[in-house]
Formats: sequence, structure tokens, C-alpha cells
Amino acid sequence: MRSPTPDISAFARLDFGRERRTGFGETVYGAGKTPEQLAKIFAAFRAKRLPALATRVSAEQAAAVAERISDVSYDAPSRTLVGAWRTRRKAPRLDGTVAVLAAGTADLPVAEEAAKTVEFFGAGVRRLYDVGIAGLHRLLDVIGDVRRADVVIAAAGMEGALPSVVAGLVSAPVIALPTSVGYGCGAGGVAAALAMLSSCAEGVTVVNIDNGFGAAVAACRILRTRKPRR
Amino acid sequence: MRSPTPDISAFARLDFGRERRTGFGETVYGAGKTPEQLAKIFAAFRAKRLPALATRVSAEQAAAVAERISDVSYDAPSRTLVGAWRTRRKAPRLDGTVAVLAAGTADLPVAEEAAKTVEFFGAGVRRLYDVGIAGLHRLLDVIGDVRRADVVIAAAGMEGALPSVVAGLVSAPVIALPTSVGYGCGAGGVAAALAMLSSCAEGVTVVNIDNGFGAAVAACRILRTRKPRR
Amino acid sequence: MRSPTPDISAFARLDFGRERRTGFGETVYGAGKTPEQLAKIFAAFRAKRLPALATRVSAEQAAAVAERISDVSYDAPSRTLVGAWRTRRKAPRLDGTVAVLAAGTADLPVAEEAAKTVEFFGAGVRRLYDVGIAGLHRLLDVIGDVRRADVVIAAAGMEGALPSVVAGLVSAPVIALPTSVGYGCGAGGVAAALAMLSSCAEGVTVVNIDNGFGAAVAACRILRTRKPRR
Amino acid sequence: MRSPTPDISAFARLDFGRERRTGFGETVYGAGKTPEQLAKIFAAFRAKRLPALATRVSAEQAAAVAERISDVSYDAPSRTLVGAWRTRRKAPRLDGTVAVLAAGTADLPVAEEAAKTVEFFGAGVRRLYDVGIAGLHRLLDVIGDVRRADVVIAAAGMEGALPSVVAGLVSAPVIALPTSVGYGCGAGGVAAALAMLSSCAEGVTVVNIDNGFGAAVAACRILRTRKPRR
Amino acid sequence: MRSPTPDISAFARLDFGRERRTGFGETVYGAGKTPEQLAKIFAAFRAKRLPALATRVSAEQAAAVAERISDVSYDAPSRTLVGAWRTRRKAPRLDGTVAVLAAGTADLPVAEEAAKTVEFFGAGVRRLYDVGIAGLHRLLDVIGDVRRADVVIAAAGMEGALPSVVAGLVSAPVIALPTSVGYGCGAGGVAAALAMLSSCAEGVTVVNIDNGFGAAVAACRILRTRKPRR
Amino acid sequence: MRSPTPDISAFARLDFGRERRTGFGETVYGAGKTPEQLAKIFAAFRAKRLPALATRVSAEQAAAVAERISDVSYDAPSRTLVGAWRTRRKAPRLDGTVAVLAAGTADLPVAEEAAKTVEFFGAGVRRLYDVGIAGLHRLLDVIGDVRRADVVIAAAGMEGALPSVVAGLVSAPVIALPTSVGYGCGAGGVAAALAMLSSCAEGVTVVNIDNGFGAAVAACRILRTRKPRR
Amino acid sequence: MRSPTPDISAFARLDFGRERRTGFGETVYGAGKTPEQLAKIFAAFRAKRLPALATRVSAEQAAAVAERISDVSYDAPSRTLVGAWRTRRKAPRLDGTVAVLAAGTADLPVAEEAAKTVEFFGAGVRRLYDVGIAGLHRLLDVIGDVRRADVVIAAAGMEGALPSVVAGLVSAPVIALPTSVGYGCGAGGVAAALAMLSSCAEGVTVVNIDNGFGAAVAACRILRTRKPRR
Amino acid sequence: MRSPTPDISAFARLDFGRERRTGFGETVYGAGKTPEQLAKIFAAFRAKRLPALATRVSAEQAAAVAERISDVSYDAPSRTLVGAWRTRRKAPRLDGTVAVLAAGTADLPVAEEAAKTVEFFGAGVRRLYDVGIAGLHRLLDVIGDVRRADVVIAAAGMEGALPSVVAGLVSAPVIALPTSVGYGCGAGGVAAALAMLSSCAEGVTVVNIDNGFGAAVAACRILRTRKPRR
Repeated sequence: MRSPTPDISAFARLDFGRERRTGFGETVYGAGKTPEQLAKIFAAFRAKRLPALATRVSAEQAAAVAERISDVSYDAPSRTLVGAWRTRRKAPRLDGTVAVLAAGTADLPVAEEAAKTVEFFGAGVRRLYDVGIAGLHRLLDVIGDVRRADVVIAAAGMEGALPSVVAGLVSAPVIALPTSVGYGCGAGGVAAALAMLSSCAEGVTVVNIDNGFGAAVAACRILRTRKPRR
Repeated sequence: MRSPTPDISAFARLDFGRERRTGFGETVYGAGKTPEQLAKIFAAFRAKRLPALATRVSAEQAAAVAERISDVSYDAPSRTLVGAWRTRRKAPRLDGTVAVLAAGTADLPVAEEAAKTVEFFGAGVRRLYDVGIAGLHRLLDVIGDVRRADVVIAAAGMEGALPSVVAGLVSAPVIALPTSVGYGCGAGGVAAALAMLSSCAEGVTVVNIDNGFGAAVAACRILRTRKPRR
Repeated sequence: MRSPTPDISAFARLDFGRERRTGFGETVYGAGKTPEQLAKIFAAFRAKRLPALATRVSAEQAAAVAERISDVSYDAPSRTLVGAWRTRRKAPRLDGTVAVLAAGTADLPVAEEAAKTVEFFGAGVRRLYDVGIAGLHRLLDVIGDVRRADVVIAAAGMEGALPSVVAGLVSAPVIALPTSVGYGCGAGGVAAALAMLSSCAEGVTVVNIDNGFGAAVAACRILRTRKPRR
Repeated sequence: MRSPTPDISAFARLDFGRERRTGFGETVYGAGKTPEQLAKIFAAFRAKRLPALATRVSAEQAAAVAERISDVSYDAPSRTLVGAWRTRRKAPRLDGTVAVLAAGTADLPVAEEAAKTVEFFGAGVRRLYDVGIAGLHRLLDVIGDVRRADVVIAAAGMEGALPSVVAGLVSAPVIALPTSVGYGCGAGGVAAALAMLSSCAEGVTVVNIDNGFGAAVAACRILRTRKPRR
Repeated sequence: MRSPTPDISAFARLDFGRERRTGFGETVYGAGKTPEQLAKIFAAFRAKRLPALATRVSAEQAAAVAERISDVSYDAPSRTLVGAWRTRRKAPRLDGTVAVLAAGTADLPVAEEAAKTVEFFGAGVRRLYDVGIAGLHRLLDVIGDVRRADVVIAAAGMEGALPSVVAGLVSAPVIALPTSVGYGCGAGGVAAALAMLSSCAEGVTVVNIDNGFGAAVAACRILRTRKPRR
Repeated sequence: MRSPTPDISAFARLDFGRERRTGFGETVYGAGKTPEQLAKIFAAFRAKRLPALATRVSAEQAAAVAERISDVSYDAPSRTLVGAWRTRRKAPRLDGTVAVLAAGTADLPVAEEAAKTVEFFGAGVRRLYDVGIAGLHRLLDVIGDVRRADVVIAAAGMEGALPSVVAGLVSAPVIALPTSVGYGCGAGGVAAALAMLSSCAEGVTVVNIDNGFGAAVAACRILRTRKPRR
Repeated sequence: MRSPTPDISAFARLDFGRERRTGFGETVYGAGKTPEQLAKIFAAFRAKRLPALATRVSAEQAAAVAERISDVSYDAPSRTLVGAWRTRRKAPRLDGTVAVLAAGTADLPVAEEAAKTVEFFGAGVRRLYDVGIAGLHRLLDVIGDVRRADVVIAAAGMEGALPSVVAGLVSAPVIALPTSVGYGCGAGGVAAALAMLSSCAEGVTVVNIDNGFGAAVAACRILRTRKPRR
Repeated sequence: MRSPTPDISAFARLDFGRERRTGFGETVYGAGKTPEQLAKIFAAFRAKRLPALATRVSAEQAAAVAERISDVSYDAPSRTLVGAWRTRRKAPRLDGTVAVLAAGTADLPVAEEAAKTVEFFGAGVRRLYDVGIAGLHRLLDVIGDVRRADVVIAAAGMEGALPSVVAGLVSAPVIALPTSVGYGCGAGGVAAALAMLSSCAEGVTVVNIDNGFGAAVAACRILRTRKPRR
């Protein structure tokens, strides 16, 4: 197959050439796709022996795909689906470690989407969960671990203060990851997202609410920039 | 004059009986009043030898009032105007101290409105400014002072994280005071206000953006509740 | 166990030292936690013989916890779950009474979350429900009861006018508690919350929509400030 | 001139036939019109000897019109401009009285726009100002006056609770008139408007923020419906 | 029982004296009440032989109430529940007719809530449905009927233009009733509500989205003002 | 039947004369209609042998209609229901082709609603799906096809950039069709709709979120304007 | 100069090749440009003898440009600046007429921006102003003129109902142009824009608030599609 | 002076130790500071011979500071003020280049704030302006330059599509910088910010609207992470 953009049943043009352009292979956003569509897409990846990752996959979707393709692996907390086949090409190891922080227990699904995606792209992950700022000592207890990471992803809902506090304490890039945890005024992650965008700490960047995947890819883009391009 | 609600030129019904009901005398919200109206209101207070405080008073308004009534005193940073006459009745001293924190230099006008109002109602104030969370040590340096206060008012714009961090470190009531400092998404104090309402720290209460006066009255209501009512 | 921040299965760092710092023991926000997580957390509290309170607990969650830990007690209207074991340490009685007002019948679940939390922390509660301002005499009938309380929590949805009217009639601190009761423009408690923040009555402070727990902790912080700290 | 819709310099089609259709003559919304346009429109009214009212007229606009047409009369507080000429036709007196309430002094310009408009259309007005709900006795002092009115217009900014409280106390139609007085969350009258739309009091209707004119016309429509149509 | 505000099981204070004050008896907002609460409230009305109306009652709630109290009558489209017992007191007939217009078929449930409420309070109703402005002739076909009504309620979702067009064609009071019909930008009735508040037609007043009940009570307040008060 | 606006069971006034006025026959918005109402409306169309199209029809609604009227045809992805009977009158063929673009797989249901509606009104459709701007070559691969169309409909959720990029590359009218695909800040299509309205590309027009039907009718209005009107 | 994208002083890359691609020459968005930048850009157009149009040009900007380049022509009401030199190439006449409707006098500046832009691109314009729907006969008086146009642009602020009513009466494409005329809830054109996007009339498309230029280009794109391109 | 947090006139606690902690020296947010405050702060930097940068400095502020401290240098387009003295310590050169892209001419001030800040911190900058996506070839012309950069900052207002298109074409980290350029729906940069947060391109991170400074510090944090820290 020559074209890097094959048609699959008239609904998708998989971008198998993306890795060449951006350094990261095509991945799949599961939400809004039928199980049939997801299964066909995974089959296309498997046919090419390419690594496959889908995010935002419900348990129902995953089960339906697994019925059609046996060698997939589903992680319920992060709602990620990974192709369990041997890929033709070695995943390029990214040099470095990403610290993934979560402010509270309810932020775990989003933090795990980030952590699993970082691992999929071949970098190291250090998980530091339930370190929200209401009990500052919890964060200060682990700040040494955070400082040893090359990139920091800080997930928080509610008032979203965690990345602001962290960015004042470390020199690494800090990616703020708002989660939809919260209620009332600013519900659905809006308060957290606005607070992160308005951070008085310098150089914090932000991804969309619950976008653990995006935070992870941003972290991997950073790790990738660390060494001479080949 | 018998009625506690005299008419002044058909535009205001001053509530001179309010102190009896709520413990706090009538005060004046300056915004939206003409200098003539303000001057007439201050004259009514002076005639009764009652303490007078107006907030949100512009320099222009203050000058216009001062032309008509000489014994007023204007504080430009906090935009407060106070009757400088001797009052008939001793201001009841409130027992206790309010710590007024400000995250950044730009939050000072609002913090000062709070501080000046607390002083007007007869309680002590401890000012602790520019202690925002991007440089956490600045807050930790003064946390002992904060802990010695009976009530804490924490003013912050931008991401508004200061009261959340403080409330995890002290046992006193913490009143979060969002300021309109900020820009872009969440501008005008919206990010700060939402973050404070969404605080993961327990028992933080919030007043409206830039409402230093309201935070101060709330603090004084708390100080007043501390002792047996007479 | 020495550390005040033990890890529980990699998802939570319980802050058993919080009481020392803030005067209030750790509590649990139930929303977004799996029954397994909740059960493990309650087990940790029981192991330490510490009082345990979880809020925002659904009937399903409560049943699942109760299956694992028999001595818990669930209150359906307020959605609170309390550890029914004998605690090692006497709950410090807070001196004073909190009046909990609710504007309408639909506001009861939120008001009850507040009332139950106040009781958990050891203060007295006076419930005054269905006293909304559309029938002002209902409020005026009970205003004597409100005045005898040390702190007032006023819960209201819809137009959220109750705390503003109450604050003009009493001298105690008034905590405005917006509820998500309402529909259309300003639905979900937004109208009530904005109205409370914009109150023309002085010194009203506000918590987030439906945050009965937070209003209660704020009330208890106030009661605690009433006496000399030991 | 036959057509009821004459063109004036290609920018306006005055609806001189409106009174026949809706019972109320054409009036002019001043905002966004040049002084030349306003002057030409007033000239057209004068030529037909019809009563003329323009609202939202700035002092500058009014001065510019008055330079061209001498017999106009401007009221600065309400920003209304009225044709001071004798009209061909007797203004039909509307039978009844409208009570115009204002919560605070800053609400007066809007309340006066309403009052002046009611007077223009020939009904009686009873002004009751500075009766906001933070000092409930101020409203209760005048509630008898309110009850004697046929229609009530209640103007309020801030938390906008006045019409809700009033509607629980009277049987007449209550038109809620939110004003742009306020700041921070819910600034510009948004909190007041949402609160009025969400009123728990029955049968309150609402006009747009600062729309004193619209409230007045609605009141006059009601007065007009009171008697047998001829 | 002397007091006009009896307690029902600690959750409601029925305002049986409301009719005396406002001319309209107490009614019940069904949303957020348990079937037990609803049933007890209806029982209290029946015990006093007073007319009873509840709105926003789901089919489930209605069935549960009907199990406990046999003589209630439920109308599914309008979701209203009415006490079917003979009332002690004759419903005061309101003199006049309310035209209830609906722009589209999907607006019927809200329009019917209005119509049923008007009928409950004893006035006449003229239903004119599916007369939205996209096919103007449908409205013009029935405009004579509209003109013969004393008050007009115009329900519309989507762009909410119906009341604006109607108010330019009739002299009676026009109450704009936005419905939650619509989607996308301005979904949930927000576009309609904003458009109605911003109407360029004079004297339109607005109730909250889907508040057919409130529109009806406002119409009845108007009808009631039509005659000399006794 | 003479009148072009017959009443169907008091809930709908079908506008069978619309085609004469606007060139497009009456169609049906399925959302919010009961199956009974839908079935009666389709029966009315069939009785007149007119082409019938309903959009936003759920599978449940469609099944219920099909039970009553056998000759209807339902397309699940686009949620459109079409009358499968022979119509009295030849559908006027519209001269020209509409290119329907979709940025991602999840946008297909909306794009298909547009495509099916264009086909219903008798114009040609060229479907070009999954050509979002994250992989620009996918769009550039098909830009020749886009350029050969007479009108372009570009559907996109998320950041909604597709129509802006397309409009810079073609001279035909471009109708931007935001979809509700997306989450977090700007969820539900809000980000896409705002971006499309704010497009820096010239002459892009926008329809509401998910309004594939409206985009299609707009495209057909354009095709219709291409030739001399008869 | 070969490249179609020359750099002008490092701040602009004029797209002189745009006409070839999209059929419309490069134009200039004046807002946010310094007079120096505008003057340099106009000089570049003049040097190439290309037609030049800038929109959103303030009187100050225009004067500053005119000082540097004498042969420009400024239209104050529409804030458009046009190069008054002879262009090398004949403006291609677009076949057809665009009806530009404005609901009120205050909408004229935006409507004129549209009209002037249509004329710049070589099509005919029919202006029909002050035909808002509050006086429906004003629109019905001119509907024949509207029907004779090939494309309709309908500008309206406030409740924005004009395009919805028009689209039900004509078969041509209707472009809804919301203006920022209005105040209070839905101010700045938001109510109008939402109403237009939510229009119950079929096939209305919308441009951004006050974007007369965009509406005009969209209309010209439509005219251009009408016949074989030469 | 020992303490790293000296007090300046009670309004600021400069964090001279920040560089040690985060790798970036203290900088100054000029907005909301009085000229006196700014001057005192710059004097403190000069006294310590530290590099000084202030952003969001108006021409008035800059002139006032320059009066007091002669060796400062103001850049009007970017509104940055830099201390022009020799610093004690060599600025650590950051290894790498940041490409700063701007979609349109109006975005230049924000892009320049970013560029100047990157230069202040010692990294290289490549400016590529007016490369917005409406004329895609402008971007494609320079994409080679973009690809050679180590980090990309893409500034855009309006529909904010630039960073999404860029991120699909390069492998470096892409920081999206929304600007407040735009009007109407999504004005003030809201449309751009939402679109960037919702980007379908992977791994884009976002800073607040107009926050060129923040984007620059984020870029420098990334450059700093590239090699072993010295």
C-alpha cells in the first residue's frame, strides 16, 4: 500500500505517515466511534504491525473490539485500549522521565490516561498521587521526586492550584492538566482550567479538561526535543 | 427625629437603626452616587454624630464631598472616605485581630479596603502582602503571623490559590477575597472567584470579586460572635 | 505508623495530622471514588479509631462499603456516611449552636449535609426549613430562633434571596449556601450563587453550590475561634 | 402624507400608525443614533403634532437636538427627551397608578426612566426609592403604598431580591426591573436578572437590564387592559 | 389549627394564608420532592378542602401520590397534578381570557402548563398552537383571535421571535414564555430567553425558561387588576 | 382541502404552501415530538402524496412510526426518516453538486444529515470524510474534488478549523457546520462554532451546532439561485 | 517581484495571489493596525495598481493614511477606506443583486459595511433599512423588493428576529448579520447571534456580530457560483 | 542582606532566590503597579546588579520609571521594560532556538512580548509573522524554518487555528498563544483560546490569552530541560 492515507470503509483516513512528520504515530480517539469502526481501525493497525493506542474507550466498546480482535488489552481506570501484538518496529525509547501528579483520588482516571500514554510512547513515568494543596506537606514530602523528573504533568480538578504551586518549586516544564472533578460554580473542570490558564507561576502551559492524552504527547514532544534529531 | 429611616432628598433612606439590629452601623456604597448625594449623606451622619464610612469613592467624588464638608478623610489606595468628626458614641472595640493577606502588589487596593474597614469597626489588623503561592516560601515565612490571627482574609487575583493553601495551614476562619487582577480567560477575577468557591480546602467562604468591604464585615461578624452577647 | 500521610493502595494519602494543623480531622469526599477505595479509606480510619465522615456518598456506594465494613451508618437524605465505631479520642465539643435555614423543601438534602456535618464536629444545630422569602412571615415567625444562634447557614436555590434578607436581621455571621434547585436561566444554582455573592446585605460569605459540608466546616471554624485556643 | 411609514433621510421609517395597532405611539430609542438623526425624527413628530419621547439620550445628544429644535425638554437623571410642543391629540389618560420601587440610590436613573415613561403615557406614578431588602423595615414601612397601586415595577441591582419579596406581599402584577448596578460575579445586572427570572415568588415577570422604558410600557399595557375596550 | 404556616413532617410550611395576601392560593412545585412529601402535602390541602395544584410532577411521582390519595387527577403532557376533591370555597372566577400561543409542537408541554394553570385559577383560555414565525401566515391567520384576548402568553423555543412579532400587532399585555426547545448555541432555551429580553417590541415581559406556571400566574395577576378591588 | 395550514389534532399546522413561498417543501423536526404526532404528520404528507423528510428522529421514534405507516425509510447514522411513497410531483432537480466534508469520524452523523437532506432536495453530493487539519495532506489530497463542487459544507467539531482552511483554498460558498464533538472547555461544539464565526477566512457563513439539515437547505438555496427563476 | 507573498516591513505578507485562488482579491482588516502599517499596505496595492479595500478603519486611521497617500476615499458611516486609483484590471462585474436589510437605524453602520463591500466587489445592492419586525408592515411593504434580489443580507441587533421572518418569505439565500446593538442580557449582539443560529426558519446562515464585510463576501461567493466562471 | 525575600516599601517581596529554585530569575508584571512601585522594584534589581524585565508596561509607566532610573530600555510594541545595566552575572545562554509565529499583523504585540522574553532569558528567536491559515501557502512557504526550531510558539487571534495546523506538521513542542484579536462571538481571544484547547492536533499546550511572557518562559523551561544541567 503506497498511500499513507488509506480509506477504511469510507469513515476514516488513517494517517500512517504521521510518525514521519511529527514523530508520533497515529492514535485513536475512541469517543463517538462505533465498536465496528474501532475494530476495523485496530485491524488496520495490526495488519501493518504498528503500535495502536485508543483513548476514551468505554468498557462496552472495548469488549466489542475484543470480540473481533483478540490481542488487545484494555485498562479500565484509564479507559485506554492498546494493541497487544508485536509491532514491526521497535518503539523508539524516549530518554527521560515524566512525573505525573494528581491532586486527589478522583483525578486518577485522567492522570492514568496521561501515564499510560507516556508509557506507550516509550518514556518513563513517576506517579505521585493525592498530593493536593489542601495538605501542603503531602506535596512537599515528594517534591524531591518531582524535581528529578524531566517534565511534570500536574492533574487537578476543583480549584486547580496544584500546577501553580509546583511550578514555583521546580525548573522543569510543567504541563497543567485540569480534570472535570468538581461541582457547582466552575463545575466540570472549568474552575481548574481557568485557574491554570491564569496561573501566577511562570511558564505553566495547559491542555484541555481531562485531556490526559494531550498532556502526555506534549511531554513526549518535550523529551524528544532534548536530543539531536537524527 | 423618631423614625430610624429618614428620607434624604428623596433618594436615600439611611438606616440609622441598623447597628441595633445587626451590630454594624450603616455605611455607604459610593459607586453610582453623585457627589451631591454623597455629601448630603455624610452631612446626615455628621448631624447625628455617627461614624461614617464610604467605600468605592473615586478621587473626584472625594474632592467634591470635601469641598462641602471639610472634616472628611480620604484614603486613595483603598478608595475609602471616613467622617473625621468626633462621634457621639464610642466605637465598640472588637476583641481580636484580622490577618489581611494579599497575593500580589496589584491586589493591594482591595486588601486595603478590607483592612481599613476592619479598622473602622474597631478590630486589629495584621497586613501580610505579596505572599502569593508562586513563591511559597514567602507565605511560609509569615505563616506564624497568620496563625496568631483570629480571622484570616486572603486576597488574590489570577488563579486565586492563596486562600486554599492558607486554609490547609491554619484553624481560624478563612475568608477568600477574589480580586479583579488578571486577564484573558477568567479575567476580571472570575478565575479567582471560581477557584475559591471550588477550593479543595475545607471551610473556605468567599465574597464577591473586589469586595474588601464585605470580607471585612464578615470578619467583624465573626469577632463579634466570640464573646457572650450583652 | 509514624508518618502522618500513609499511602493506601497508591490512590490516597490520608491526612491524619490535619486535625493538629487545622483543628478538623480528615474527612472524605465520596464523589468519584470507587466503593473499594471508600471501603479501604474507612478501614484505615477504623484501624486508627478515628472519627470518619464521608459526604456525597450514593446509596450504591454506601451499600458496597457496608458490605465490607459493618459498623458504618448511612443517612440517605444528606448522603453522608459515618463510621459507627467508638473513637479513641473524645470529639471536642464545640461551644455554640448553628442555625441551618432552608428556603424550600427541595433544599433539604443540602441543608441536611450541612447539619449532619456540624453535628459530626460536635456543635449544636437548629433546623429551620421552608422559610423562603416568597412568604416572608414564615421567616419572621422564626427569626427569634435564628437570632439565638451563634452562626447562621442559609440554604436557598432559585433566586437565593434568603441569606440577604436574614443578614439584614441578625448580627451573627451568615454563611450563604446556594443549592442547585432551579431551572432555566441561572439553573443549577448559578442564579442563587451569583445573587448571594452580589448580596446588598453586609458581610455575607458564600460557599459553592450544594456545598453543605463546606458551609458546616466554615461554621465550625467560627465557633472554634470563639474561645481561647489551648 | 398617506403612508404610515414615511422615510426620513433613508435611515428611519417612523411608525406613526403604531398607536392604532398597539395603543402606544411610536417612541424613539436614542442610543446609537446621531444627533442629526434624532433631530430629524423629532422634527417629524413635531410636524405631525404628535407626542414624542426618546430614551437613552445622552446630555450631548440632547444638547445637539435642542440646538436644532428649541421646544424639547431633557431630564438628565432619566436621560429622557420629550417634545415640549402641544400635541394635536389629547393623551388618553390611563386609569390607574404604577408604584415604582427602587432598591438603592444607584438604581434611580433606571427607575426614573420607568417613571417618566409611565407619566408620558398618561398614568399615575408613586415613587418609593431606597427600599432594598437589606433593611427590610424600609420596605415594610411603605408596603401599604405599594398595595394601593395597580401595577408594581420593582427595580434592583445587586442580588435583585426586591421584586421577589414584594410579590409575596401584594396581589397586583409585579414587573421586575433589573439594573446594571453591581460588580464582580454577576456584574452589570446579570445576577439581578437571573435572580428575578428564578424568583420563587409566583407570577413575577422580568424585562431586560436597565430597561425602565420597557417595564413602563408593560405596566401601561396592563392598565389599558383594565377597562372595556372601545 | 391557628397558625397559617403548619409544619408537615419538618419539611414544609404550607402557606394557606397566601391567598389572603396575594390573591392566589398556595401551589406546589413538584420537582425535587419525594412522593411521600407530595402525598402529605396533598393530604393537607384535602384536609382543609382547598384547591390543590402541583406542577413539574413526573408520571412516577403522580402514580405514587395517586396510590396514597385516590382523588387526584394527573395531566401527562403538562405534568400537572390537581386535587380532584370538592373545595370548601368557590374558586373566584377571573374575568377575562388568556390567549396561549405556542410556536411549535415541541413547545406544547410548556404551553399546556400555562394553560392548565390559568384554568385552575378560574380564567378562560384560548389555545393557538404551532404559529411560529417561520410561516408567518399561520400567525396572521389567527391574529384576530389573539387580539380578542385580554392577556397573551407566547411560548417559543429556538430563536424565540414569536412574542416580539405578536407584541407589535396587539395592544394587550404580552408575556413571553421561552421554552427549552433548541440545541447547540443557545440550547436549553437560552437563545429564546435572551431574544425575548432583548425584544425590540415594546412592553414585552419575560418569565424563566419553561416556566408556564409563572406566566399563567402573571396573566392572572393582570386579570385580577382589571376590576375594582373589594 | 383549501387552506394551506391544516390543523392536525391541535398540535401542528403543516405548511403545505411553503414550497410555493420559499422553494422548499415543509419538513419535520423530529426532536420533541411523540411517535403519535410524527406518525400523524407523515400520514398527512402521504395523504397529499408530498415528499416527507424528518430529521432528529431516534430509532425508537422511527420504529413507532413504521409500525403505523409501513412505507417509511429510516437511516440510522443520520437519524433521518423519509416517506417512501411515490410523490405526486416530481422533485425539482437542483442543478449542481454539494461537497460535504467532515473533519473526523465522529462528525459523520451530522455530515450525513446534511448529505441526506441535500439528496432529498434533489442535488448531487460528494462526500469527503476524515479530512481534518491535523493531517493537512488528507485535505490537500482531495482539494481538487472540493474545488469542483458548487457549494461546500465543512463539518468539524473540536477546534473547528476545517472550514477556515478550506475557504482560503476555494472560491465557492463555504458553509461551516460545527458539530458537538469535543469535550472540556468549548465542549458540545461551542469551541468549533465560535472559531467558525471568528474565521479569518473571508465569507464563511455558519449554521448552528449539529444543524446538518440547515446547512443543507442553505446549500440548496444557493444552488437554486444559480438559474433564472421560472 | 515574483513571489505572490511579499514582506512589508516584517509585519505583513500580502496575498496578492488570493484572487486567483478564491476569486476575491486581498483586502485589509483595519482594526489593530497602526496608521503606518495601513499606509504601507495601501502603497503596496497602489504600486501594483490593484483595487484596495480596508474595513474597520477609524477616522483617525483614515486621516493618517490620507496624509501619506492622497488618493484614498473614506466612508465614515461604514468605516471603509478604498483606494481611489485606477486599477490595472477591470473589476469583474458580478451578475446579480444583493438586498441589504437593516432592522433599525442603529444597525446602519454594519449594514453599510456590507453594502459598500458588495459594491467594491462589483455586484448590485438594494438597501432596505429600518424594517424591523416590531412593525411588521414595514417589512411587508418592501417584501417584493426583497424577493427580487438574488441574495439577502439581513442585519439586526436586539432580538435578531429579522432574518428568521424574512427566510420564511423568500426563496433566495438569507445571510443573517447580527449587530452589536442591544444591552443587558444578550448585549453586544449575543442575543441576536444566538437567535439567528437558532432560527426556526430553514437554511439561514450566520456570520459573526458586526461582520458586514464577511456577509458581503459570502453573498458575492454565492453570486459567483451562479454561472460558469469566465 | 541575607533573606531572599526583602520587603520593598510594604508592597512587594521580591523573590531574588527564584532563579536558584526554578532556573528563571524574578520578573515583574507591570499591570496594576504604580510608577513609584515599578521604579522602586527596578532600583532593587539594579542595586543587586540583577537582570530586570517587566512586561505589560504602558508608555506612561515606562516614562515615569525612566525619569527616576535612567538606564532602562523600553520597547513600545511589546510593552516590555528592561534594565539596561550591566548585570553581575552572565546570563546563562540557553541552547536552542524558538520559532515565534504570528497569524496576523494585529497579533504582533503579543508575539513580540514572547520574542523579547525569550531573548531576555538567552535563547535564540526566529520571527515568522503574518502566516495565518486563510492563506495556507504563507505558512507552507516557511515551514522549513519552523521545523528547524527547537520549540514553536504560535500566536493567533480570531479562530486560532494556526497552532493546530502547525502541530500536524512538526515534531517539536508547540505552545499555542491565543491573542485578544477578534470581535463579536468569541471576542477578546476566547474563540482562539477555546479552539487551541480543543485542538485535534496532538500535544498542543496553551497559555492564557495575550500571555506572550508565559509562552516564552514555557519555551525556555523546555530548552533548559534539553541537556544536563550545569
